[in-house]
Amino acid sequence: MGDRDRKQHFRRSGGKAPDKGAQSGRRPAWRDRDTSPDGPVILYGWHTVAAALANPQRRIRKLLLTENAARRLADDNIDTRVTPEIVRPSLIDQRLGPDAVHQGLLAEADPLPSPDIDTLAQEGIVLVLDQITDPHNVGAILRSAAAFAVKAIVTTARHSPEATGVLAKSASGALELVPLVTVQNLARALTELNDQGFMTVGLDSQGSETLGAVALRQLTRETCSVVARLDMPGEIKSLNVSNAAVLALYIGATRLGLMG
Amino acid sequence: MGDRDRKQHFRRSGGKAPDKGAQSGRRPAWRDRDTSPDGPVILYGWHTVAAALANPQRRIRKLLLTENAARRLADDNIDTRVTPEIVRPSLIDQRLGPDAVHQGLLAEADPLPSPDIDTLAQEGIVLVLDQITDPHNVGAILRSAAAFAVKAIVTTARHSPEATGVLAKSASGALELVPLVTVQNLARALTELNDQGFMTVGLDSQGSETLGAVALRQLTRETCSVVARLDMPGEIKSLNVSNAAVLALYIGATRLGLMG
Repeated sequence: MGDRDRKQHFRRSGGKAPDKGAQSGRRPAWRDRDTSPDGPVILYGWHTVAAALANPQRRIRKLLLTENAARRLADDNIDTRVTPEIVRPSLIDQRLGPDAVHQGLLAEADPLPSPDIDTLAQEGIVLVLDQITDPHNVGAILRSAAAFAVKAIVTTARHSPEATGVLAKSASGALELVPLVTVQNLARALTELNDQGFMTVGLDSQGSETLGAVALRQLTRETCSVVARLDMPGEIKSLNVSNAAVLALYIGATRLGLMG
Repeated sequence: MGDRDRKQHFRRSGGKAPDKGAQSGRRPAWRDRDTSPDGPVILYGWHTVAAALANPQRRIRKLLLTENAARRLADDNIDTRVTPEIVRPSLIDQRLGPDAVHQGLLAEADPLPSPDIDTLAQEGIVLVLDQITDPHNVGAILRSAAAFAVKAIVTTARHSPEATGVLAKSASGALELVPLVTVQNLARALTELNDQGFMTVGLDSQGSETLGAVALRQLTRETCSVVARLDMPGEIKSLNVSNAAVLALYIGATRLGLMG
């Protein structure tokens, strides 16, 4: 699955990135900061920050809260772990740009570690994303992955701190729940998954079988590699990538007996 | 289903709208134009414009094409219907803003008429959207609706020309395929659908039954009103609205025997 026809709104950018954002007046203040792979990620929004605070794996460097947000966290007995700076909403607006729905919470945090494929539990669903980079799509997929108890997401995409913020917001807390395994070579990752006993099913509108038929065979727990398609009864035959992903997860989870 | 926690990027705005866009340097040029309900909508991107050109119901007022896009339309034998203006890509960039993936095509067109509920065919799936206004979400839902042969979408939301452009792009041509029925009062619309023999199923995480169980009863073709839920096996219990919509469509279409 790919999202090639949707322009990337964010690219990985270090301090020497082209200055286009500044020219158009849209560059959030934190864009100038340290953006090395181990640099901080920016998390904002209620679900995203609350989930980060609840995740002992997530190191919080700094926490900006509005008075209202601080009160809401206290009311919900959520430990802030670091002493928050109480700020006005406009200060967070300035840092994130005008379109970010931050709900009065912004955290600077360390990125989570990317686990190795050979450390994954050898059961359940692992989702592999090929060339899906748009942070809204990846975030929505993460949220659905957490809803369907996916064990990990394997991807080649690395996201800048700002893209991670958008991704985390779209994921609505799921970034803390589903490990993102970042690999250099997706084909090698698929081979490793096969070697570990996973059945790998590719999704392609030109696939040889419908996903339902393939997923039934999954019950035999064979390790095999097939390419399946989702047949649509209507005039449009392809779905938005996060919509295709959630359908695949539903069908897979149903066939694996996870849907209760 | 609602998307209240995602900020609206667009609001309906007439010529006298507050000038925030201009201040931040982000206001596309066409934002100043006629934005009355019957004013033009802006369509861009290959699938969106090609679908509009293929829709005899859609009146095209003006068509801007890059040389490459004009050649591609000619290669595909797509009739442009009006004489296109051949322009440089940067001119379309200027009109749409830097984030729009226009692929060299921009059309100004009349909005499509909103049909009345009592003119809808009394079979198949009608999707009713409650307070879902974000144009990316509505566009993705439209695309899935076209994939699942949905007969119409009922909504209270009205979109500005720029939001319609984003919606149409996310819908990837589906805006021409699925009628959007815009109503003032959603409760009245649901009553009308019930009166016409539709079974109306609400989706709510607090619903009394799972959607699968409800949809089975649909086979009895009874008219009834129930509220159903989608049970998720994972830690997150709610999905992005377009992801929830596509799952509901898949389950509904499967139970109605549309999935082949």
